[in-house]
Amino acid sequence: MSPSVLENKVDYLKQREELIDADRALRRDRLFAESSSALKLEREADKVVRRIRAEEAVGVWKEDHLDVPHPFPGMEFLTGKGIIERTKIFKILSRMPKGALLHTHIGASGDPRVLLQLALKYSVMHVRVPERLTSANIGSSLPQFMAFPDDSVALEGLGITSTDYVPNSWVNVSKARDLFDTSLGGPEGFDQWVINGMTIRPAEAYGTHNTVEKIWKKFQSTFTVLGGLIRFLPIFKGYIKALLLSSVNDGIFYLEPRCDFFFANGIVTADGKRNVTSRDIVQLFEKTVHEVKEELRKEGRGDKFLGARMIYTAFKAVSPENLYWFLDDCISLKKQFPHLIAGFDLVGHEDTLRPIIDYIEPLLYFRKRQAEEGVEIPFIFHAGETLGDGNAADSNVYDAILLGSKRIGHGYSLVKHPKLMQMCRERNILLEVCPVSNEILRLTSSMPMHPLPIVLNNGIPVALGPDDPLIFGNAGLTYDFFQVLVASEINGLTTLSVLARDSILFSMMPPEEKSKALAIWEAEWKLFLEHIVFQYK
Amino acid sequence: MSPSVLENKVDYLKQREELIDADRALRRDRLFAESSSALKLEREADKVVRRIRAEEAVGVWKEDHLDVPHPFPGMEFLTGKGIIERTKIFKILSRMPKGALLHTHIGASGDPRVLLQLALKYSVMHVRVPERLTSANIGSSLPQFMAFPDDSVALEGLGITSTDYVPNSWVNVSKARDLFDTSLGGPEGFDQWVINGMTIRPAEAYGTHNTVEKIWKKFQSTFTVLGGLIRFLPIFKGYIKALLLSSVNDGIFYLEPRCDFFFANGIVTADGKRNVTSRDIVQLFEKTVHEVKEELRKEGRGDKFLGARMIYTAFKAVSPENLYWFLDDCISLKKQFPHLIAGFDLVGHEDTLRPIIDYIEPLLYFRKRQAEEGVEIPFIFHAGETLGDGNAADSNVYDAILLGSKRIGHGYSLVKHPKLMQMCRERNILLEVCPVSNEILRLTSSMPMHPLPIVLNNGIPVALGPDDPLIFGNAGLTYDFFQVLVASEINGLTTLSVLARDSILFSMMPPEEKSKALAIWEAEWKLFLEHIVFQYK
Repeated sequence: MSPSVLENKVDYLKQREELIDADRALRRDRLFAESSSALKLEREADKVVRRIRAEEAVGVWKEDHLDVPHPFPGMEFLTGKGIIERTKIFKILSRMPKGALLHTHIGASGDPRVLLQLALKYSVMHVRVPERLTSANIGSSLPQFMAFPDDSVALEGLGITSTDYVPNSWVNVSKARDLFDTSLGGPEGFDQWVINGMTIRPAEAYGTHNTVEKIWKKFQSTFTVLGGLIRFLPIFKGYIKALLLSSVNDGIFYLEPRCDFFFANGIVTADGKRNVTSRDIVQLFEKTVHEVKEELRKEGRGDKFLGARMIYTAFKAVSPENLYWFLDDCISLKKQFPHLIAGFDLVGHEDTLRPIIDYIEPLLYFRKRQAEEGVEIPFIFHAGETLGDGNAADSNVYDAILLGSKRIGHGYSLVKHPKLMQMCRERNILLEVCPVSNEILRLTSSMPMHPLPIVLNNGIPVALGPDDPLIFGNAGLTYDFFQVLVASEINGLTTLSVLARDSILFSMMPPEEKSKALAIWEAEWKLFLEHIVFQYK
Repeated sequence: MSPSVLENKVDYLKQREELIDADRALRRDRLFAESSSALKLEREADKVVRRIRAEEAVGVWKEDHLDVPHPFPGMEFLTGKGIIERTKIFKILSRMPKGALLHTHIGASGDPRVLLQLALKYSVMHVRVPERLTSANIGSSLPQFMAFPDDSVALEGLGITSTDYVPNSWVNVSKARDLFDTSLGGPEGFDQWVINGMTIRPAEAYGTHNTVEKIWKKFQSTFTVLGGLIRFLPIFKGYIKALLLSSVNDGIFYLEPRCDFFFANGIVTADGKRNVTSRDIVQLFEKTVHEVKEELRKEGRGDKFLGARMIYTAFKAVSPENLYWFLDDCISLKKQFPHLIAGFDLVGHEDTLRPIIDYIEPLLYFRKRQAEEGVEIPFIFHAGETLGDGNAADSNVYDAILLGSKRIGHGYSLVKHPKLMQMCRERNILLEVCPVSNEILRLTSSMPMHPLPIVLNNGIPVALGPDDPLIFGNAGLTYDFFQVLVASEINGLTTLSVLARDSILFSMMPPEEKSKALAIWEAEWKLFLEHIVFQYK
């Protein structure tokens, strides 16, 4: 090797380093790392986590696993969940202070077993099936639940698996469970059947329903099952309470769940009334948040939960004409509960339901009405949760941004749009990214295929969300943080800290509350780093 | 609706249109459409194609198909191939003038059946297996081929399925075929077994080998099988000839295949010599190109084939020390055949073999030597054919660009790198995108998940390539163009025309040749548009 070439190599390596730096310069973890001074501890903990991640990539993820033919870090969640839970990285992340949970649908955000337990607790809850349940139809027949607190229904003395079962007749849930035929698994068989109806199994996501279109059919059917359970106000309350408490246990201290006020129709109260209003639901939510705060305060964990706000959502199956009712309802609620309504969103399967542009008249009206009423309800739109390129669903990202959405739910297709990427960065629009949801709903096949690295490298703010954890099995935020950490060699603890910090900064908390939240989180984060170094170094 | 809101809507729609325009402004089909004047015919043909695409999306792709449980446009190629071939879009695209083929590996670019036919034609070709082939091992046992023109091998009189077969003994290929046990399918069973060893089947890509790591193991094993066949010079020649002719029939009029001079070792000549040099291979290539030109001229199709150049490639399994030999060899060939060596590349599985940076010293030496020798051999590097984020394979894109690569093979991970995306656009670095290959090698699960729209919307030049069509079954360019056209509602005929035009513009043809090629292509394109309008409107 001649000296001139070696000199050249030195130059080359210097240029290379500068290029990599320039390429990553927009990353928010980079910006943060440069602006912060007290990072010695974080760097130490980060090194520990990177070491464990590398060890587990060749250890845990290369071992033979029963029934998991192709394990790898960031693999299909439903198949890999058992392996994930065995890792040290998961154990570490489950203790991470995660900040705010900004993307979850309240109707599908709890625990299916908790929901079932609640249903069994209330004798007024009933279940029915279109025809007697047998081994032949148990895989396709879904339970329908409804509360009958007013004894208006003639109850059969037979179980839903009984040969004498009258199709579509209502049976008390506990009785249906007790009488569930032993050939179908008895009471545990009943539990499993109900849970299967509310959740997505690996064989469905990765086999029978392995396209976006098909998995959405299964996905939507789960809402029918669980919808019957949560449309009984006492269950809804118990369910929200369990959700808040389990979130706190996962290191989440603030939530902004989306609540669909279209589905709120048809809720039944404890005393059998069916005229539950939006106002009743918000009040119930407020009361539950308050109770959880009280409970935690009594346990000396008052600083572990700062509260919650709702994002008012309407379902895209409504016609533009019918949207006005929801918009007026939302404004009315915001005026009554300014501290509880965080924003407005439109939800539903983007590939098949109406695009945002169809609602442009009511949405512009909404903006105008807000100005008149002196309230401010930011748009926090779902947009671009699609694989389409240039179709209506993909085009939703144009409208979300043009309408001034403060955050974007999913924004999966945003990476295709250079101008919109620039606008999100410049206007500080945060993307609520839901890794596990995107994979189960077949937008991506695994985490290494997910476009998140593009978003992060372009310096667009991101917060993670579990979306519909009841259905997907990714309760809390630990699983989603896990998938993000293990599928990249760039992401480290600082990346995760920025995701958590941005979830607070881009929440709809008022400034003072936000500052307080940030201070609490910073303290927790420091303890978390100390724990990692102490425990794993 | 109040008048002020309606006014607002008009403003909104205007802003929206401007935003979509701004977002797509970098697209090369957009730039071309604006600069060209004679586009009336193209717009008409484009409308026809979009209509047929939409019809087939809800027609052909929604029908029930035997053994294809989840059909959709852009689906897994190996499963959907039969449906693809039934579409009008495929029929149309098979007539499209495609310009230049810039990304294919000569060792895996032909037709497996042609290769087998050639093997049967030469009595010197032999086959062996490690143990007698049975129904138990036929799925896992691979044929090994070798030519013995010098009768140096003791030939057994038995077939490879015979109970008396001596493990690892060589059998004449035709005899092995004739004697192939009827319980294994007889001669057709032999053909299928050999073809299976050289190709990837749906059950492998989407089942047993459904990860990047595993499918590469299968992928590499195919090279072992077909390598034995093409390492006999007369077969190699016949095979290249068939490749060139079938390319022409697919509307390709110029090729720049990559030729691996590492694997060129061990080639046997017709008279049994084993000291075939790089020079011999280039001469054979030149002779074959010449013969094909002659044949076509005689048929009055002289303008259908403009020629071919080789991209000299070395295999990344070689050590940096051993690369010097190949670099010197490449310079020597370039001096002898300036019109035949298009560039230099390093190939092999990026996730497991050495990154480009490991070879930095020899590569800088290569550049220096070229300057001294007064030759110019552009780098045309494979880089970023990986799902890794920040790993060595992903980092290859930094080195490809820093070293001045004129084009990038795959560049699959480029979309993650904002600075590099900008550099590719500004420096006019073309990406050789291989849609079918990326999907079969499990970088993407289907075309709608492929990052190509990001590349196109960012205005980076692209040419399509089939990569290893012998193994993947995507001979020519029709299949890859098909996948690109049906997976997007933005892409249309102008997009395809720009891809084809860029394949010519970014080829290594000298300027004069390029101008001539472009003129021929323009004329063909016009005929193609006329055909579409005439036949399908």
